[in-house]
Amino acid sequence: MHQTQSISVIGTGNVAHSLVPALLDAGYSIELVYSKNPEHAQHFARKFNLRPATKITDLKSQIIIIAISDSALEQVIKTLPKNENQILVHTAGSQPIELIGQYHMHAGVLYPLQTFSAQRRVDFKNVPVCIEANSEFVAKQLTGIANHISEMVLQVNSEERLQIHTAAVFVCNFTNLMYTFGKDIMERYNLPFDILRPLIKETADKALSNDPETVQTGPAIRNDQVTLAKHTNQLNDDLAQKYIQLSEWIKKRYG
Amino acid sequence: MHQTQSISVIGTGNVAHSLVPALLDAGYSIELVYSKNPEHAQHFARKFNLRPATKITDLKSQIIIIAISDSALEQVIKTLPKNENQILVHTAGSQPIELIGQYHMHAGVLYPLQTFSAQRRVDFKNVPVCIEANSEFVAKQLTGIANHISEMVLQVNSEERLQIHTAAVFVCNFTNLMYTFGKDIMERYNLPFDILRPLIKETADKALSNDPETVQTGPAIRNDQVTLAKHTNQLNDDLAQKYIQLSEWIKKRYG
Repeated sequence: MHQTQSISVIGTGNVAHSLVPALLDAGYSIELVYSKNPEHAQHFARKFNLRPATKITDLKSQIIIIAISDSALEQVIKTLPKNENQILVHTAGSQPIELIGQYHMHAGVLYPLQTFSAQRRVDFKNVPVCIEANSEFVAKQLTGIANHISEMVLQVNSEERLQIHTAAVFVCNFTNLMYTFGKDIMERYNLPFDILRPLIKETADKALSNDPETVQTGPAIRNDQVTLAKHTNQLNDDLAQKYIQLSEWIKKRYG
Repeated sequence: MHQTQSISVIGTGNVAHSLVPALLDAGYSIELVYSKNPEHAQHFARKFNLRPATKITDLKSQIIIIAISDSALEQVIKTLPKNENQILVHTAGSQPIELIGQYHMHAGVLYPLQTFSAQRRVDFKNVPVCIEANSEFVAKQLTGIANHISEMVLQVNSEERLQIHTAAVFVCNFTNLMYTFGKDIMERYNLPFDILRPLIKETADKALSNDPETVQTGPAIRNDQVTLAKHTNQLNDDLAQKYIQLSEWIKKRYG
């Protein structure tokens, strides 16, 4: 497979670490990679057999994908020279397309709905990719790329993308917080966290094939006051308060 | 494989639905199955090719496993005739072994640390089984059974079992609540919950091979006030309040 669009990437973080190999696997060639930290760019370029850009103004590719932190985005977009032949794309869930569109003619968003870590390679085929474009021309280019790297591509507008990102915080960040609280309890009593892992897996697996609302279990949804009291009695004040709050939310949500 | 102990089961709910086939697969024969609702016993017996007991006093097996709701447990234990040749075993996370030991000579607990649904068959080999016994004799019997059905068997006392159950509520029940809130947000904006599922899976997968404390991500741990405000601004008051509370917990826990 050989794709004809030329792409450069700004950013060498967790998103770039998963997106770049997905693009390479799909037959795209990455012209240059840029990071404000030249060592990061060199290291990343070596890792994926690419060329690092020395200056951000060296990026002349048809498509520039900017995969950097939200707070740094606008400054980088402003710095890039205006170029009517170039499409600028960001990858952020909570940033509107207008962040680019206000400075550049061709603006797009390619938001991969997944949690990325540099040390874990994610199979991009199964990552839902939310795209947005400020013209039919950009939409066609982005749809082509997205369909080559993922089997689940959606067109959503900036508002919807923000809503999706908010829901993602609940099922990812807040869920991981619950895992950590479980670990805290186990560690406090010198019990192995390992034995909770099959439960973590099955709880997720259930939600993969069911509506989570219909598979809720536990003492709170049964309003089992005796068990609720037993549980909170042996937690420290801080975790007991959280247990009570979360149980109240369950009673109210499913009540 | 042919196991010599005779076992009967009281209860036909989610635990029995996973435990009974695991026992049968391991070569145990189930003598009788009892439920206070005779139709449930008949239905369950037909399903697994067993015999239903008409009266609870008909249960004469060497081992009786009582897999019923916590609130019904003590009444059933009191009803069972005293029998010095019989071992009574419950499967509850938050009930002490003494609930049986105060009435019967041979008491045991076999607590499978997993979330069970009648409609989902769980592979018991991967279910951690926590056992407790009130004598060496019972310990030997229960260890034998547990090792035949699971590859992860632990001896824990009643207090530890309660602690494990409390941690399980966080990683299972409270986690599923987070999934439901994610669904609520998606439904409110007519977005498909489906696209969150790869994220649910990857978030769990990360916790299966990492310490969840070290893989926490999201705007709260970065203390990204701009994104936090964007997210809460488009939630209704109820979910915004929850989002703020959970984010505060993240800042405090990882701060």
